[in-house]
Amino acid sequence: MSTFKKIFNSRAEKDGSFFMRMQSIIGFKPKNIAIYEKAFTHRSLGLKKEDGNPLNYERLEFLGDAMLGSVIAAHLFNEVQGGNEGYLTKMRSKVVSRKHLNELGRDLNLVRYVKASIPIDNFGANIHGNLFEALVGAIYLDRGYRYCEKFIAKRVIEPYVDIEKLEGRIISYKSVLIEWCQKEKHIFKFETFEDTGQDAVKHFGVRLHIDGKIIAKARATSKKKAEEIASKRAFYAYQREIESQ
Amino acid sequence: MSTFKKIFNSRAEKDGSFFMRMQSIIGFKPKNIAIYEKAFTHRSLGLKKEDGNPLNYERLEFLGDAMLGSVIAAHLFNEVQGGNEGYLTKMRSKVVSRKHLNELGRDLNLVRYVKASIPIDNFGANIHGNLFEALVGAIYLDRGYRYCEKFIAKRVIEPYVDIEKLEGRIISYKSVLIEWCQKEKHIFKFETFEDTGQDAVKHFGVRLHIDGKIIAKARATSKKKAEEIASKRAFYAYQREIESQ
Repeated sequence: MSTFKKIFNSRAEKDGSFFMRMQSIIGFKPKNIAIYEKAFTHRSLGLKKEDGNPLNYERLEFLGDAMLGSVIAAHLFNEVQGGNEGYLTKMRSKVVSRKHLNELGRDLNLVRYVKASIPIDNFGANIHGNLFEALVGAIYLDRGYRYCEKFIAKRVIEPYVDIEKLEGRIISYKSVLIEWCQKEKHIFKFETFEDTGQDAVKHFGVRLHIDGKIIAKARATSKKKAEEIASKRAFYAYQREIESQ
Repeated sequence: MSTFKKIFNSRAEKDGSFFMRMQSIIGFKPKNIAIYEKAFTHRSLGLKKEDGNPLNYERLEFLGDAMLGSVIAAHLFNEVQGGNEGYLTKMRSKVVSRKHLNELGRDLNLVRYVKASIPIDNFGANIHGNLFEALVGAIYLDRGYRYCEKFIAKRVIEPYVDIEKLEGRIISYKSVLIEWCQKEKHIFKFETFEDTGQDAVKHFGVRLHIDGKIIAKARATSKKKAEEIASKRAFYAYQREIESQ
């Protein structure tokens, strides 16, 4: 058995099934799980492929970065009909910024799957975004461009790419919602609680009540973020009423 | 009839069939020819879509640039097994450099299809690359990612993306070939001639003879370029002999 297989077998035992966890993150069955294993292999292990080239996730980052760039570009092209080339470029660079990619990787807690010979705490902040890019690259290699689009729609575009926010028309959904509730005399309450579950990183849950009913729920790595996601969901539930004010 | 239709109809009359010309450039049938018409509409015409947004090729450039980026990335990822992330990034930026995109657009003579209210001579050098990007964007919109890949393979990767050259292992195929001919006592001759044909831009043809036989032909916008392409073709024809020296 190769070192690579041994390392991943030992992880599979510790974490339950790596395959099942990947499936739940990406939203479909991996075909070639070895590609995903590579996407979490840090170069500190010093592993090599049969041809002598290094075996780690760095090349997959390059691939994933390119796929993110084109999928996000196509989405913005379709959604922002009024934006010219420069404007679309600026919007895209916000979505695929290092900071945002790090958030995406952190929210999925990808770092828990990394195999490295140095402790996780010694990685810089960019490990999260790098792993996210590598995962996108792995999906492209394993299942092709359309599955890449699916994954990016589910994990990037739906939860985070908000044209209203990117265009600066809405800075905070929470404040838009609160303002509307106060004006229209709706009673609202954000109920937040710790909900770390199986995650290594602390998570928070939020239930947003309006007039005594739970209207939206959300879960994220900070209270503020979870409240904002819940507010956004509520905003879209009440959009017609809010915008007809 | 809208102004847009009138302009393109008048062009179709002048140039023969715009549809047929696009088909010959892209290598497959356009589904929605209006998208390609947009890819050649310069903003100087001041056309607007029904929703009031400008109708010109600038947004398509943004889309095409992104598609070029990801298709070239995937190609380099597969072909350059030994390159790390930084190396692949550097290679990609050579392929999609402004200078190279301008060459690609110029070689296809895309500028002849432009509709603008200013004379072609007043455009800067970047018009060629911009049109090339816009055409790639149009193909993506019209036929999707796979057709984009096909087009880029045919018009960018096959003729121009040369891993040996990108990696600096070969600077000039012509000089490698001449050196080999001299060493192995082969008689070679580059026969060049003007071959402008139907093109507005001057073109040159080259026939490369080795030992009295025509081994390779090429056609390009300069003698030097045509000789280099012919030499590259001859190099691959004789690769085994050349590399076993």
